[in-house]
Amino acid sequence: MRPQDIITRKRDGAALSNEEIEFFVRGVTEGGFEPYQSAALLMAIFLRGMDAAEQHALTEAMLRSGESLDFSDIERPKADKHSTGGVGDKTSLLIAPLAAACGVAVPMISGRGLGHTGGTLDKLEAIPGYRVRLSVEEFRAVLKSVGFAMMGQTAEIAPADRKLYALRDATATVEAIPLIVASIMSKKLAAGLGALVLDVKTGTGAFMREESRARELARALVKTGNSFGVRTEAFLTDMNQPLGRAVGHSVEVQECVELLRGEAHERARPVLELSVELAAGMVLLSGLDETVEAARARVHRALESGEGLETFRRNVEAQGGDPTVCDRPAQVLSASPVREVRVESPRSGFITGVDAAEIGLAVASIGGGRVRVEDEIDAGVGYLAEARIGDELRAGDTLGILLCRDEAQAALASKRIRQAYALGDETPAAQFKLIKDTIVE
Amino acid sequence: MRPQDIITRKRDGAALSNEEIEFFVRGVTEGGFEPYQSAALLMAIFLRGMDAAEQHALTEAMLRSGESLDFSDIERPKADKHSTGGVGDKTSLLIAPLAAACGVAVPMISGRGLGHTGGTLDKLEAIPGYRVRLSVEEFRAVLKSVGFAMMGQTAEIAPADRKLYALRDATATVEAIPLIVASIMSKKLAAGLGALVLDVKTGTGAFMREESRARELARALVKTGNSFGVRTEAFLTDMNQPLGRAVGHSVEVQECVELLRGEAHERARPVLELSVELAAGMVLLSGLDETVEAARARVHRALESGEGLETFRRNVEAQGGDPTVCDRPAQVLSASPVREVRVESPRSGFITGVDAAEIGLAVASIGGGRVRVEDEIDAGVGYLAEARIGDELRAGDTLGILLCRDEAQAALASKRIRQAYALGDETPAAQFKLIKDTIVE
Repeated sequence: MRPQDIITRKRDGAALSNEEIEFFVRGVTEGGFEPYQSAALLMAIFLRGMDAAEQHALTEAMLRSGESLDFSDIERPKADKHSTGGVGDKTSLLIAPLAAACGVAVPMISGRGLGHTGGTLDKLEAIPGYRVRLSVEEFRAVLKSVGFAMMGQTAEIAPADRKLYALRDATATVEAIPLIVASIMSKKLAAGLGALVLDVKTGTGAFMREESRARELARALVKTGNSFGVRTEAFLTDMNQPLGRAVGHSVEVQECVELLRGEAHERARPVLELSVELAAGMVLLSGLDETVEAARARVHRALESGEGLETFRRNVEAQGGDPTVCDRPAQVLSASPVREVRVESPRSGFITGVDAAEIGLAVASIGGGRVRVEDEIDAGVGYLAEARIGDELRAGDTLGILLCRDEAQAALASKRIRQAYALGDETPAAQFKLIKDTIVE
Repeated sequence: MRPQDIITRKRDGAALSNEEIEFFVRGVTEGGFEPYQSAALLMAIFLRGMDAAEQHALTEAMLRSGESLDFSDIERPKADKHSTGGVGDKTSLLIAPLAAACGVAVPMISGRGLGHTGGTLDKLEAIPGYRVRLSVEEFRAVLKSVGFAMMGQTAEIAPADRKLYALRDATATVEAIPLIVASIMSKKLAAGLGALVLDVKTGTGAFMREESRARELARALVKTGNSFGVRTEAFLTDMNQPLGRAVGHSVEVQECVELLRGEAHERARPVLELSVELAAGMVLLSGLDETVEAARARVHRALESGEGLETFRRNVEAQGGDPTVCDRPAQVLSASPVREVRVESPRSGFITGVDAAEIGLAVASIGGGRVRVEDEIDAGVGYLAEARIGDELRAGDTLGILLCRDEAQAALASKRIRQAYALGDETPAAQFKLIKDTIVE
């Protein structure tokens, strides 16, 4: 087998065999494929696609490039959630404790933020003392005792994915659906899940802006998960404006704790709404309830009884964080004071659209995210979105509140955020719908 | 400008700007594009194509990556021929002296053989003493005094092409028409030609087996040549069996000299037929005659008067070779005796098809070509094709004569050659046509 022959076949639109796909993935980690040969094949896959059998084989080969975690000693059903990423998307911090409180074990392996999207690990690190770098044994112990545990990907899980991702990033092949699916699913499968819920976002702050492409991705993810025997469901959700009110690390954790405490700002409600649905999906797919209504009711009980908050507290404590964040979130999270700057509407009218990615990038530009991989994060800066699509404003009314460090940041980011809002004379035509569709095979 | 953005645009089917194409080609030679980024772009170009403006810009950028030769001090019209390569394709050795004898200056920059195809430079080196490594000044002097000169590409001509070719070879993007056109034309344009004739071969021994693809390539070559002000014409020619009788280095030179002497084997005739047409094309496009009939007659006069042979002799002498090759080709060329092995037809019937590439590879496998770039060539070995498509044979009749060194070679290559012939009970349906079409813009 020669790399050129495999590239030729994909280039000409053929379906690759399991052996060819395994040869490729092994070649990426062990050197049988030169980076330029991998790049050519990635572009051919981008433009020619992969069928379901190829998709399964690619995912399996990437999974097998590394180690899997074995949680078979944990009796509870194991389930997880994965989001394709958005702005103000902090649902993991609610879903994990709520699902765990319902009886699901959630071994959540999360990522870092980059560009306009934040990362769950970065947000958790806003809690003083919280450790996301756990050994597999520590992770297992927290999962067993608390019901959920949070950590980053280890070097042992799907190493081919890391190599391929760097190459995809440099060669404009990140958005290829078969490559996205294999990347997501190989890592999720390594955690030995029985069920998986996917939050595939679409809109101005989503990785897949177009709904048709997001839907295509959702279908491929569900199909692949099920082909590995993992009960998988995808939610197609709106990302045309920040999810909830808070964008930024400390304020997003604060928003989650306040939601678990039942004390959150009214603008934070969509976060809870989506989190309950996704957690209910995990409960349902795990077989703890027979209907989505029953699963939803179970999640609501976990929330209202305070069991969700207590589960979160036990996790924070187990992972080295300050558990009083659950009692006094604002105080514990605001380590250093920030400057609050009101971002005003430049004119009267209805908000007809928001460039959510621009808001994410504006926050990142003042330290609230990573423009480059090596950037350090300032957990304290951020943005509180007060106005939403459909709101009617007068000139000078508040769009939101920028949390920043100095005058220069204030000027830079508030201008960029202001320009991210489109205002018109009429209410936007489309009705806002947070969950656009659910996709099961 | 970032490589990723350029890759993204081509990936999504956009036409690249002149600036983007120049940035790419400069990046290939100077390092602004990593090899894996170039590979991804090459695959995107393969699958998305390029329009005429992009094709022109790519060719120009590759031309400009190196130096051009300036032959403006030579008053004769300058023209050249380029073939996409085949088996037994030795027309350069006839066309150059014939066109030169007609009054055209032919600064022919040729290549080496690889795989099933031979190279003009390798064939010339079968003449004792012949030097193809000339300095530009030596080349100019030979061109001026003889009317044609032959050499290999210098390091200074289109260096981006060499880097890209190596990458294309490793990434299955060799056959992309825009890349082929830019590669051929950038080198030809560097010689400052006024006219160019292209021999685009199609069939089992051609680079482009399918006629439709060969035609597409021919059209793109003609369009690009003309867009640079070079009068360009392409001939679409048959390569479904070796061209003429001889395949191999010494025997191909011998066949050419015998054709120039008017003493060739009857089976060599198609070589002359094609060479006369291509040389006439050069004469016509150079403006020496008004009609193709007049140009053809001029080429015939050069042949029959012996002026073609004498021009060849002057070139051999000027480039350090033994000029008596023109008087006693068989003796001068056969430095070491070879073993002649008759390849027999395994059955009775009509020859319905020949895998010409297989014949080329069989000859290469015993030293008569290069399987790998670093292989050394044995000029003495080869194959003389006696039977042609449409011939009726009995079992045991001669298909051809293998020229080899020992028993092992004889067994290996004669089996492979025998299997390259398809025999049937009826005459092949399609009428053989050497020149299938001519393409002018």
